[in-house]
Order: sequence, then structure tokens, then C-alpha cells
Amino acid sequence: MTPVTLVSYGLGPIGLAIAALALERGHRIVGAVDIDPAKAGRDLGELLGREPIGVAVTADAGDALGRRPQVVLHSTQSRIPQVAAQIIACLEAGASVVSTCEELAFPWYRHAATADRIDGAARSHGVTAVGVGVNPGFVMDLLPIVLTAPCREVRAVRAVRVVDAGTRRLPLQRKVGAGMTPAEFEAGVAAGTLGHVGLGESAAMIADALGWSLDGVAETIEPVVNGGRVQGLHQIARGRCRGQEAITLDLTMAVGAPDPRDEVVLDADPPMHVTVVGGIHGDVATCAIAVNAIPRVLAAPPGLTTVSRLPALHA
Amino acid sequence: MTPVTLVSYGLGPIGLAIAALALERGHRIVGAVDIDPAKAGRDLGELLGREPIGVAVTADAGDALGRRPQVVLHSTQSRIPQVAAQIIACLEAGASVVSTCEELAFPWYRHAATADRIDGAARSHGVTAVGVGVNPGFVMDLLPIVLTAPCREVRAVRAVRVVDAGTRRLPLQRKVGAGMTPAEFEAGVAAGTLGHVGLGESAAMIADALGWSLDGVAETIEPVVNGGRVQGLHQIARGRCRGQEAITLDLTMAVGAPDPRDEVVLDADPPMHVTVVGGIHGDVATCAIAVNAIPRVLAAPPGLTTVSRLPALHA
Repeated sequence: MTPVTLVSYGLGPIGLAIAALALERGHRIVGAVDIDPAKAGRDLGELLGREPIGVAVTADAGDALGRRPQVVLHSTQSRIPQVAAQIIACLEAGASVVSTCEELAFPWYRHAATADRIDGAARSHGVTAVGVGVNPGFVMDLLPIVLTAPCREVRAVRAVRVVDAGTRRLPLQRKVGAGMTPAEFEAGVAAGTLGHVGLGESAAMIADALGWSLDGVAETIEPVVNGGRVQGLHQIARGRCRGQEAITLDLTMAVGAPDPRDEVVLDADPPMHVTVVGGIHGDVATCAIAVNAIPRVLAAPPGLTTVSRLPALHA
Repeated sequence: MTPVTLVSYGLGPIGLAIAALALERGHRIVGAVDIDPAKAGRDLGELLGREPIGVAVTADAGDALGRRPQVVLHSTQSRIPQVAAQIIACLEAGASVVSTCEELAFPWYRHAATADRIDGAARSHGVTAVGVGVNPGFVMDLLPIVLTAPCREVRAVRAVRVVDAGTRRLPLQRKVGAGMTPAEFEAGVAAGTLGHVGLGESAAMIADALGWSLDGVAETIEPVVNGGRVQGLHQIARGRCRGQEAITLDLTMAVGAPDPRDEVVLDADPPMHVTVVGGIHGDVATCAIAVNAIPRVLAAPPGLTTVSRLPALHA
């Protein structure tokens, strides 16, 4: 493995875990950025619970980007309007970007004009940006796409993911509404503070890879309720193509959800039914994918790309 | 889909099925090559049981290659020494090559010098060659590689494939020894006429992708016997890395084999256990992968490559 010079941008639980894995792999982190005042000025190594590494966290990205990283590992927020300026600043500093921003997994779906601006910035500075993660980015989009390779014809794609949120970190349990009343859940959905971001992006990535033109994607989100309390959510995206439901992405994330798993069913020739026993653990997987993506973005042509357009990531 | 100008090279059951699918997809076949005298001079469309397409089968490839195909769909034999001259002739005629030759899935494993010659011919003519198939090429190598994307660390890879040969074409049943006596089976193995070609290549492809240096690959092949008659074979490749068995590829192809399936187990963080219920049908899958590879080889940089180095194939 060739060590790469990195900046860690966003030091929440995922950003920190990505930084830790990158260091473990022998990469060199030269800058760390986070807006949390409690983190400013602290050494990144200390934040990771290890020896200091001589990299102080700054709230302003300019300082870190001035140290000429080859790649920025970006993990701040889920929506493109929240992160576009951050990512463009990285690209304009000559760094490629691997971001866990969910909407960046397939940015043309909701924000085509901004995606084009990011693409333009990447191209004009000869660098690459890609959105990665386990979901979106792998289990409900890239994996189904890869599984169509042996198919002569694909009529419909169905992916089911069931996560027992009880085995996951607290912020994720909050994100899925665990512990709320049904009324609080509905209010959270209405306010956009609840729910998984990225099902629509996954549907759009699948359609793009298979050359399907989607009429539209309909998303629904319902609480999983037990004893009057919300345990989590059940979210479905349905992509229609020529009037038929061609893509169905069915996600349950709830405390105590039975039979946790990932499942892909292709209505195809030959048909395909694939099960990931127990499911893929989201946090570990997202960190690993981000670090595994480093050599791929460095080798990719300049521009904004997707994991479905890159050679297979691997450990 | 952009129609591509093709030559079909090798018109056995797999080659014919590939040609049929390519036509169905709207590609244009301008030449067809096969050494079988019973096929020479016949129209490819007629051989496919459809209307004539104005392409007569020739035993000599030069005629077909003179029609300037962009891609040759090559499906003749399993071993690189048998096919190297055929493939180099295609490349020197300026055509990219998608071949189902098993050893070409990872040609450096057994035939590094010949692989380098093929690579040189491809580069100097600005075209690309790749070996494809369901096994080797997908289910026991590319799929495990793709499944390592969410892993921080991979310690060992195990792939199990069980095929009920009773559901497959007769040549495949013969290839696995079905109906032989155990003594005939042993003689067939010793003569190299029996057995699956490609397990070692799959192990080498996995090791290459994961950056592992293999100490060596040990292959064993045993008959599956019932009532004194061979039903098929059980073949295992074990790749050792730093003294440990790091890659285990376990293949059973036998008439009536119970619980047909494909299975990938990663001893990894997070661990991964993936099952393809019922397994992937080999013949349909190999044809689909060959045709699905056409746009990928046309977009790839010149040279001899592998499916693990290309962006994900898909339908």
C-alpha cells in the first residue's frame, strides 16, 4: 500500500473512525477540520484516544487544505446543499474528496445543477470526488448492480435491509426515532430530522447503471411501533420505469428488528436471490469503504463520479 | 445501448449462446469463426436457429478479422497455450477481445510470459483483452473481492460453489466425470481431460486484488461417487499466504448434488457470510457476462486486464 497524504474533514463518530482506520493503514493525516468548539485546537491523535500526532483540529478548513492533502476524507452532513461549498473548497485546493455525504452517492438525483458545479470544480483542478458509504453506496445499490453482471435481462431489482438498531450507536437510534411517541415521529419526519437519507439516490444509481430511465421514485416512511413507543422506521423507495415498479428498496432500522439481514432479489434471467446473513454492519462498513476508496479516487479520471463507475473497491 | 461490431470466434454451445445474446441486444456480428467442418460455410443465423444474417462461418480467422470488428467474442478453449495465438491475432487486427478462456481470467497465474505477450500486443494496437465467465470470473473471485469493500481487515476468504450437474448440459456432465467408473475418473484427471479449469486463477485474482502475496495454491480433485459410479467432482484450491490458508475455493459439480448454492464467507472485520440461493446458473451467466463486458472493454485502457480491474459489469 502506498501511503497517501490526507485531511480529515468532519470528526463525528464516523469521521473519527475513518481517521483511525486511515492511520492504522499507514496513511498520513496532515490536517483535521471540525466546527465543534470542544474539539478545536485538540490533537487529532488524542481525540482518537491514542498518542498525539501533531495535527491540531481547526474549525476553518483553509488551514488544513493549505497542507496540500492528496485526498480529503469528508464526513460532515447528509445533504448536498449542506456540503457543496465544503467539497468545492477541497477540490479547488487540489485535493480529491471521498465523502460519506449520503446524497453525494448519486448527486444528480436531487441536485443536478450542484452536482455539475462539483464536477466542474473537480475537472478543472484535475481531481476526483466520490460519495461512499454502506447505504447508500454499497448494500442497496452497488451490490445489486454487481449482481446483475451474470444476467441476460433484468426486469426488476428488490433490495431489503433489516438493521437491529439496538446493536448500533445512539445517534443512529435517534435518527430512526427509537423511543419517540408516534406523534413525535411524524413531526420529525415532517421536519426532515428523521429518516434514512439516500434511498432515492440508491434507486437512481441502479437505474443509471442499468440504463433505465425512471419515471420517478416514491418514498414512504412509517414508524415501527411496539407498546405505544417507536422502535425505529420502515422506509421504502419505489422506482417506476415505463409504468412498472422496477426498483424496490425496503429498509427497516428498528431496535429489536427480527432477522437482521441484507437481501437482493433480481427478477432477471437467470433470477438471483442473495442474502447477507445478519446484514452488513453499517458503521464499520462505511469507514472501511471510505478508506478502501482512497486508491480508487487517486486512479480515477478527474470529475465527480460514483462507486458504480469505479473499479471494484476492496479491502 | 450503442451497437458494436463483433466477430464470434468459437461456436460451441457457449459461443453460439453468446452470439445469440449479442444479436438480441442489437449488436452487429460481421464474422464467425469455427474449426468444425460441419459448420464451415453455414450462415451464423441459421446455426442459431433463426433467419440467415449473411455471415458465413469460416475456419480461418483472418477473413472475419479483416471485417474490422471492434470486439471479438472468443470462446474456443480453456488453456492459454491453446488460445494465445488466436487472441494475439485478434488484437493485431485491431480488435479488443472478450474471451471465456478460463485461464485468461487471471493469466499471470500459470502463464506470465504469455500474458505479457498478449498485454504487449493489446497495448501496441490500442485495444483491450479480458477473460470473463461465471467461474472463473465472477462467483468464486470477483464476488468475494467486491464483498471485501466494507471490510477494515480481511484475514481469509472462503467460497463454496455447489452445482447440480444434472441440471446442466451434457458436455458439462462429461467434464465432471458423471457416469464414469472411479478408475476412469482417475485416468481422466491424470490426463487433464477432467476437472474444472480456473480455481487457481480465481485464488490468484483474489490475492492480487487484496494485495496478498501467495506462497502457493494447492489444488485437489476427488470424484463424488454413488453406487460405484462417479456423479461428478469435488475440487478444492487452497491458497496459502504467510504460512496460513488464506483462500479456500471449494467446488462441487455433481449430478444430484444437494443444496446447490454459491456461498462466500469472509473471515474479516466485519465478518461476511453471503449466500446465492440455488447458485448462479453457469451457462446463462457466462454468456451474459461476456456480452455485458463489451462496453467495459471498449472503455478500458489498452492492455490485458481482468474483471477485478474494470468498473463493475452489469446487465
